[in-house]
Amino acid sequence: MKSIGVLMTIPMPSNLAEKLATRFTLFKLWNYPSIESFSETHADSVHTIRAFVCDAKSAADAKSIDALPNLEIVSTNSVGFDKIDIEKCRERGIRVTNTPDVLTDDVADFAIGLALAVFRKIPNSDGFLKNGLWKHSDYPLTTKFSGKEVGIVGLGRIGSAIAKRAAAFGCPISYHSRSQKPEAGSYKYYPNILDLAANSQVLVVACALNEQTRHIVNRGVIDALGPKGVIVNIGRGPIIDEPELVSALVEGRLGGAGLDVFENEPNVPEELFSLENVVLTPHVGSDTEETCKDMADLVIANLVAHFSGNPLLTPIL
Amino acid sequence: MKSIGVLMTIPMPSNLAEKLATRFTLFKLWNYPSIESFSETHADSVHTIRAFVCDAKSAADAKSIDALPNLEIVSTNSVGFDKIDIEKCRERGIRVTNTPDVLTDDVADFAIGLALAVFRKIPNSDGFLKNGLWKHSDYPLTTKFSGKEVGIVGLGRIGSAIAKRAAAFGCPISYHSRSQKPEAGSYKYYPNILDLAANSQVLVVACALNEQTRHIVNRGVIDALGPKGVIVNIGRGPIIDEPELVSALVEGRLGGAGLDVFENEPNVPEELFSLENVVLTPHVGSDTEETCKDMADLVIANLVAHFSGNPLLTPIL
Repeated sequence: MKSIGVLMTIPMPSNLAEKLATRFTLFKLWNYPSIESFSETHADSVHTIRAFVCDAKSAADAKSIDALPNLEIVSTNSVGFDKIDIEKCRERGIRVTNTPDVLTDDVADFAIGLALAVFRKIPNSDGFLKNGLWKHSDYPLTTKFSGKEVGIVGLGRIGSAIAKRAAAFGCPISYHSRSQKPEAGSYKYYPNILDLAANSQVLVVACALNEQTRHIVNRGVIDALGPKGVIVNIGRGPIIDEPELVSALVEGRLGGAGLDVFENEPNVPEELFSLENVVLTPHVGSDTEETCKDMADLVIANLVAHFSGNPLLTPIL
Repeated sequence: MKSIGVLMTIPMPSNLAEKLATRFTLFKLWNYPSIESFSETHADSVHTIRAFVCDAKSAADAKSIDALPNLEIVSTNSVGFDKIDIEKCRERGIRVTNTPDVLTDDVADFAIGLALAVFRKIPNSDGFLKNGLWKHSDYPLTTKFSGKEVGIVGLGRIGSAIAKRAAAFGCPISYHSRSQKPEAGSYKYYPNILDLAANSQVLVVACALNEQTRHIVNRGVIDALGPKGVIVNIGRGPIIDEPELVSALVEGRLGGAGLDVFENEPNVPEELFSLENVVLTPHVGSDTEETCKDMADLVIANLVAHFSGNPLLTPIL
C-alpha cells in the first residue's frame, strides 16, 4: 500500500507515525504552517493522499478536506469526532472511523481518579507532605467519596464504565441522556439535566460533544449542583460553559472540579490554578502506553480494511 | 458523668475534645511535655481519671497506663491499636476499644485513589498543567490501571472493601493473610506473601500492624513485585521495611508507590519527594469530615456504654 498517501495532522503517541510510514507514504502536516502551505509544497503528490489521520486535538475541517482531492477516509485517533466536519465528509462520500472501546476503561478510570483526587485532595496533600509541612501541622479534613450521589451526563460506553466503577464505591447512580437506556438497570434516568444536577453530589460529564450538548452544563446546571457539588469532565471542554464554571468555582458556588478537558486547549483559565478543590489534567484520560498502542493499531486496521476492500472495524460514516 | 476524668493524648478531629468535655472532665495531655509532668501537676486529681483516649498517632504505652492508677478503659480514635500496650491492659483488666467499620469506606477509597494517582500520575500532571507546561508539550504517557493484578495483604474489613472496588475496574484479586477466608469467593489465596507479590502488579498493604506483620513487606517481596510493580500502603508504615522500599524506588527496582503511612511519622524519607511515580499523603486515609464525626461519636459511645454498665460497642479487650 506504499502508493497510498496518508496525511497526519500532529505527532501522536504510541509511534503511530512510524507505524503508518511502514505501510503507507506518510505526509506530516505538522511540519508546515498550514494546509495551504502543505498543498503548495506537495502540489505534485497531494493527489496521492487518500487518507487523513487526525485526533481529539487536531481538526479535519472543510478546508483540510477540500485540500485533498482524492481523500477517501478520515481516521481519528480518538473516540470523539467533534473536530471532523462530518457533513463535508458525507457530501464527498468520505468514510470516517474512530477508536471506541479500546479507551473506555482508561477514561472511566481517570474519571474516578479525578473524583477521588478532588474529594480527598490527593494532589494537594501530596504537595503538603513534599513541602515539609506535615512536621508543623495535620492536613485538614477532606470529604468522603463513597456513597455520594453520582449523576452521569451521557450513558454511552464510557458513562456506563464510570457507573460500574462508582457503584462499587456504594454510590447511587443517575444519568441524563437523550433517551432512557433499557440496559441501565437500576440507574435512575432524568430526562432533564437540571433535575439530574439537583439530585446529584457529583456530576460526571461523559457525553459526546455536538450541537445538542455544547454548553449543556450551563450556569443553571452548575447552581443546581450547588456549593457542595463536584463536577468531573472527561468528555469535551465545550460541553461545559467554561466561564460560568470558573466563576462558580472562584465564588464558591460550586464545591470542586476535576477537569481533563477545556474549551480552548491547551489554554486553561488561570483563575483555577490556585484553587485547592480543583484538579486539572492536560487531556490525558486515554493516554496510557497500553491504550495508545491499541488506539494506534485500530487507526491503522481501519485504513488497511478500507484499502483492502474489507468492512471498516469502527465506522462512524 | 462529670466526675469521671478522661485523659486525651492529642487534639483530634471532629471536635472530639469539645464533645468529651460536655460529658466528662477532660484533661489534655498535649498541654504538658510528658505524662510525668502531667501527673505531677495533677497529683490531686489523677486518681479521677478512668478513661484514656488516644489515636493512631499517639501512644497508650505502659508508662502512660501506669501513671493512671484508676484507669478502666482505653478508647482509640482509630481502627489500628498498635500503639496501645495490650498486654499491660490485659494485666490490669483495662478494657480497650477502637473505631472499626466507620472508616472502612474512606480508607478503601483512598487506597484506590492512591493507586490511580500513581498509575495515571494525577498529581504530577496537575502540576504540569498548573505550571503552564501544557502550552509547550504534551504530558508523557502513563500506565493503565484497569485489569492490573491486584494483590491485597490482609483481607479484613478494609482489604475486602478495596477488593470490591478494584474488581469493578476489571482487576483480578488475590490476597495473603494468616488463613484463607471462606467469604473471599473468587479471590485467589496465597499462603506466602512472596508468591502473592510475584503474581501481582499492584500490592496493597491493608493488614494490621503486629509482630507477625512488622516488615512483612521486605526486600524479597519488593523485588518479587518488580520494576513495573506498584505498592500502595494505607495500613501502617512499619509493615514495610521502609529503607528497602526507598532504595527500590530510587534505584528503579520498583515501579511506583502510593503511601499514606510511614515508619516514623511525620518524618518521611526525603529521597522520595522528587520521584514522580511516588504519591505521598500525610496519614489521611480516614480523615474526612463525615468519618471523623462518626469515629468521634463511636469513641464517646464506647465510653458512655462502659460507664453505664452496658456492653462495649466495639471492644478489642
